[in-house]
Amino acid sequence: MASSSAQIKVGIVGGTGYTGVELLRLLSAHPNAKLHAITSRKEEGMPVADMFPNLRGHVDLAFSAPENAALTECDVVFFATPHGVAMGQARALIEAGVKVIDLAADFRLQDTAVFEKWYKMPHACPDVLKDSVYGLVELNREKVAGAQVIGNPGCYPTTVILGLTPLLEKGLIKLDNIIADCKSGVSGAGRKTEVGSLFSEASDNFKAYGVSGHRHHPEIVEQLGKIAGQPVGLTFVPHLVPMIRGMLSTIYVKIKPEALETDFQALYEQRYQNEAFVDVMPVGSLPETRSVRASNQLRIALHRPGHGDTLIVVVVQDNLVKGAAGQAVQNMNVLFGLAEQTGLDQVAILP
Amino acid sequence: MASSSAQIKVGIVGGTGYTGVELLRLLSAHPNAKLHAITSRKEEGMPVADMFPNLRGHVDLAFSAPENAALTECDVVFFATPHGVAMGQARALIEAGVKVIDLAADFRLQDTAVFEKWYKMPHACPDVLKDSVYGLVELNREKVAGAQVIGNPGCYPTTVILGLTPLLEKGLIKLDNIIADCKSGVSGAGRKTEVGSLFSEASDNFKAYGVSGHRHHPEIVEQLGKIAGQPVGLTFVPHLVPMIRGMLSTIYVKIKPEALETDFQALYEQRYQNEAFVDVMPVGSLPETRSVRASNQLRIALHRPGHGDTLIVVVVQDNLVKGAAGQAVQNMNVLFGLAEQTGLDQVAILP
Amino acid sequence: MASSSAQIKVGIVGGTGYTGVELLRLLSAHPNAKLHAITSRKEEGMPVADMFPNLRGHVDLAFSAPENAALTECDVVFFATPHGVAMGQARALIEAGVKVIDLAADFRLQDTAVFEKWYKMPHACPDVLKDSVYGLVELNREKVAGAQVIGNPGCYPTTVILGLTPLLEKGLIKLDNIIADCKSGVSGAGRKTEVGSLFSEASDNFKAYGVSGHRHHPEIVEQLGKIAGQPVGLTFVPHLVPMIRGMLSTIYVKIKPEALETDFQALYEQRYQNEAFVDVMPVGSLPETRSVRASNQLRIALHRPGHGDTLIVVVVQDNLVKGAAGQAVQNMNVLFGLAEQTGLDQVAILP
Amino acid sequence: MASSSAQIKVGIVGGTGYTGVELLRLLSAHPNAKLHAITSRKEEGMPVADMFPNLRGHVDLAFSAPENAALTECDVVFFATPHGVAMGQARALIEAGVKVIDLAADFRLQDTAVFEKWYKMPHACPDVLKDSVYGLVELNREKVAGAQVIGNPGCYPTTVILGLTPLLEKGLIKLDNIIADCKSGVSGAGRKTEVGSLFSEASDNFKAYGVSGHRHHPEIVEQLGKIAGQPVGLTFVPHLVPMIRGMLSTIYVKIKPEALETDFQALYEQRYQNEAFVDVMPVGSLPETRSVRASNQLRIALHRPGHGDTLIVVVVQDNLVKGAAGQAVQNMNVLFGLAEQTGLDQVAILP
Repeated sequence: MASSSAQIKVGIVGGTGYTGVELLRLLSAHPNAKLHAITSRKEEGMPVADMFPNLRGHVDLAFSAPENAALTECDVVFFATPHGVAMGQARALIEAGVKVIDLAADFRLQDTAVFEKWYKMPHACPDVLKDSVYGLVELNREKVAGAQVIGNPGCYPTTVILGLTPLLEKGLIKLDNIIADCKSGVSGAGRKTEVGSLFSEASDNFKAYGVSGHRHHPEIVEQLGKIAGQPVGLTFVPHLVPMIRGMLSTIYVKIKPEALETDFQALYEQRYQNEAFVDVMPVGSLPETRSVRASNQLRIALHRPGHGDTLIVVVVQDNLVKGAAGQAVQNMNVLFGLAEQTGLDQVAILP
Repeated sequence: MASSSAQIKVGIVGGTGYTGVELLRLLSAHPNAKLHAITSRKEEGMPVADMFPNLRGHVDLAFSAPENAALTECDVVFFATPHGVAMGQARALIEAGVKVIDLAADFRLQDTAVFEKWYKMPHACPDVLKDSVYGLVELNREKVAGAQVIGNPGCYPTTVILGLTPLLEKGLIKLDNIIADCKSGVSGAGRKTEVGSLFSEASDNFKAYGVSGHRHHPEIVEQLGKIAGQPVGLTFVPHLVPMIRGMLSTIYVKIKPEALETDFQALYEQRYQNEAFVDVMPVGSLPETRSVRASNQLRIALHRPGHGDTLIVVVVQDNLVKGAAGQAVQNMNVLFGLAEQTGLDQVAILP
Repeated sequence: MASSSAQIKVGIVGGTGYTGVELLRLLSAHPNAKLHAITSRKEEGMPVADMFPNLRGHVDLAFSAPENAALTECDVVFFATPHGVAMGQARALIEAGVKVIDLAADFRLQDTAVFEKWYKMPHACPDVLKDSVYGLVELNREKVAGAQVIGNPGCYPTTVILGLTPLLEKGLIKLDNIIADCKSGVSGAGRKTEVGSLFSEASDNFKAYGVSGHRHHPEIVEQLGKIAGQPVGLTFVPHLVPMIRGMLSTIYVKIKPEALETDFQALYEQRYQNEAFVDVMPVGSLPETRSVRASNQLRIALHRPGHGDTLIVVVVQDNLVKGAAGQAVQNMNVLFGLAEQTGLDQVAILP
Repeated sequence: MASSSAQIKVGIVGGTGYTGVELLRLLSAHPNAKLHAITSRKEEGMPVADMFPNLRGHVDLAFSAPENAALTECDVVFFATPHGVAMGQARALIEAGVKVIDLAADFRLQDTAVFEKWYKMPHACPDVLKDSVYGLVELNREKVAGAQVIGNPGCYPTTVILGLTPLLEKGLIKLDNIIADCKSGVSGAGRKTEVGSLFSEASDNFKAYGVSGHRHHPEIVEQLGKIAGQPVGLTFVPHLVPMIRGMLSTIYVKIKPEALETDFQALYEQRYQNEAFVDVMPVGSLPETRSVRASNQLRIALHRPGHGDTLIVVVVQDNLVKGAAGQAVQNMNVLFGLAEQTGLDQVAILP
């Protein structure tokens, strides 16, 4: 394990998507990381900064073909690839002593049957999966520190799980009817060229999608169930917002009769008081996605209309940072014994 | 009452906001309407098309001061004014035999105590209010036809009420826990100059607002209760979407155990089969706000994840058309015995 | 030729792009047009309104394969296809007595060598091209009326040519240094799935493109030269604006010394006084693209800073309407002896 | 003067606008700056982070009334105020030995008559103005280092001046006909509540403004004339782009006959080779505003269509950073002997 002053040699597999360029933005400015290899079969030889001009002057590397990349020389390899890639390459890296952080779904779901159902492929390495850690540091800090393979959480799951954790840990809400109405910016769909992601389709428009089923549903349910110690019933509806970055989840829960007197604000503040990246806002706050734009911060506000039995938890994050690349770097920091905020203390961009 | 071939003389009080310009767009192209007077004290004398250049060549009128406008010569007067204006002028117009359609809230809430609580002013004419009609044509067509004063519904209420009407009329859902997670484009905030409505604040951003209480909540609750025949418990959270026009409401309800076998799709299709402006989309549809942009259409789709006891109703409309000016013209059409679609058959603008 | 009261049978080849859906929006509401066939090989059998939900209730047709479409039964066929398609099918249609309006570039450039250079394909029917008419009605009304094949102008050319016509016709400006700095909404790039057209790439961003050469350059130059009676020197730089629809061209010209006393405002007003779709705005106006959104209007304003020898012509249009589908319908109206505004009198959508 | 390791005590007058919050974002992360006082009469007592939630956890200060702020204790005071404020307070600060950096126009124009004409107020301290320095570091590095009062350049001027400097210094272009067609994001209009800056007005729209005269015109002309050693003739047309941040200027110049053989690319690369914040992109590049979003970088690309006598210079920057707050911090760095990039090495946010 690298000491906090040494340079961590970093590889990125699949650096041409939005989580890839976001990793590059964060890691190129990280005081303890050194970019060693970035792979893309399609763009082999192209300087990374030619594709992403914001990196001009910050990243000198060119894309290399996966087979030529010196990935086994790295201390850690991030997979910013489609689902299914990381699990095919993880074993070789592990054997070379390289830590693996997968930003896709290969190491998020412990139940391989559920994985196969939603991702339409068999899991390539169930044994590696079994030893992997779900990289939500606020829940699993100790395990992350000792992990070899980390499944970086999905963007929606990060908001819903952190939004509900204090309630579930204390058993304060009914578990059979949690509603998560979630909204994401378009970058969540990635840099793939699909009609629905075109500017002229997604701009000045709003819609729900995946109402009949979304891959993040089983992931959220698995994690919530783990915290609650029993299964939870979740209705999850994602929506597409005409903005590039940002995610807001409005979560509706029913307070148990015996918990109606709880000071929920105090509960949340206490639960997250030592968390650098979770900001419990004052009572009555209305978090905006721009308050976390391009930062690793996640903000939570609680509302209880008419002081009744419905509690509303509003959570915001930048889907590409705390919801993807920033959280992955946070995992790297824990993995290598660095202070958790290292390289992640950017102020959000507003306006 | 004018016959369908005659010209209806129309006055508009307060033509400088977004509902005003939208009324002008629709009425200037309406085959049976003739714009007679448009008032604005502040802009007296300014040609309307100087303020709204889209109207160049379509509207020749200039703004006139309210006291100089020949409103009593009109057949109908629309109030596109802040709350509180219409109720101050309604009586004089009624006495002159003029029909009144208020796009603000003065004639939406029958309970004046509720009105005073939410709009911070006493009601100026409770007797007129008592005789007024809530102008949701799909519910109150007969009453609208015979009305003297119409309270044009709020934008959010239009979506939530029409989204739930078939369920409430048949008593198929639990009434104590309806959740309406609603999203609106920024034009819903009007043309007032407020920091939160600035481009640099509202663009590339998403937020909830009014979580602790919104004026449309009592309006929705009053109407839903009327349909259901008993009080309903509603949690209503509006959100602001970075788009100009458009509104989408995601409504979550619990089906009663005895109603689980209902064919909800058939129920909705049947209920709205004769409604020109309510489109029940096929099972599994994902309505987009742009599918109704600048049209008076409202579209509904039903979802029932896992065929469980949660039913999700997704409703879209253009908040300035079916949610405001278009619905007002629809009311005018009914009021004057015209075919309901007259002047309202525009195809939505996509892309 | 159809009389103005008869129904024109209309075919559309390639109805799945933005000019296609815009044609459908306009033609489905056109009082003298009847949609007869819409082709798309890829989407054969799919109801058009399934792809474009704004057309639900307005268009009942399904896409048909090109070879099965009854195009030769039509009175007119619009080609909303990529460059090169119309010229391959035009002859067969002409022989069947069908009028052809091509929205692509096949019949815009009279010089086939120039066509081949810019569109990388030989011209398939130079003889048809020779008899075709450049469908800018404001310049070529008589010829359009008698044409068999019409090349519908490009979007940028429409603004630049109409912006300069009065000056060129009177010989008032220097011809060696015309600068057209043009800006277009993203829909101009069509519905093709290209990375640069993704929301997350084009939103909150601004860039120039095609600086070293754009296909509309030779088209503009050919038409300007024809009006001026001699070659013109044009610098043309297009830019991409993060909006769906709209185009604004800022044109800089040098007034000849002998023409400095000209009343340019009067010149423009006189030149376009009988043109329904060209609005010369008052001196000092600042036209906005939204003032023509979804309408066939084109607006022009003149500026002459410090009353010097530089004249600035600002032109706005909706690139999909006057810059494409609306202009095509305008051509159809002229072709079939209808009033030019028939079906094209929509008020622009603002806000 | 503080040494590079000491902490510079910083005051900000007028911290409630966009340049104010951007200064706060940059300075709160600056390793050598310590925020000492932020003034706002209107918001006295309000924690800064309550107004700008992106600063939660980064800025603990509250706004103080100007008269109570310990501004004379500061090493440097930034004025992020409307025009006219800084010149009223500069003398008192100078006498207390405090450096002044004005982000408004009070110290940009040396000719007070020109100032009065454009800003409609007499200049309060012509003697201070005379000793002040125009804070474009790339031109005036030495003078900035020794200045007491700095006029931070306007956003448009920064792009046009840096875009033309290499040409003017070498006398390679005609000076009587420079055209700068400039485009800015809406944040350039500030946080003032004006109708034209509303989301529903500025979104999905594009327009020119200030065509008959803009305050940045005399500023640009004064600086270009100084570099060229003689007056220049400039046509300058600003436009409003529906994006929050970003500015792109397309500059058209005529190359002198004797300079046609110049290697302009080499000229620019050489002129700016030691400038950390000026990036001369490779031949043929198309700079995008997002490539500099939230960074202090300015990028330039050259185009010469057909290798003729027209040279096109395309320049992009973030109007709030290099065009305002970032450039102000760059000035502070030079003023206090720090490395120029200190606190300004952020990677631009893309997507």
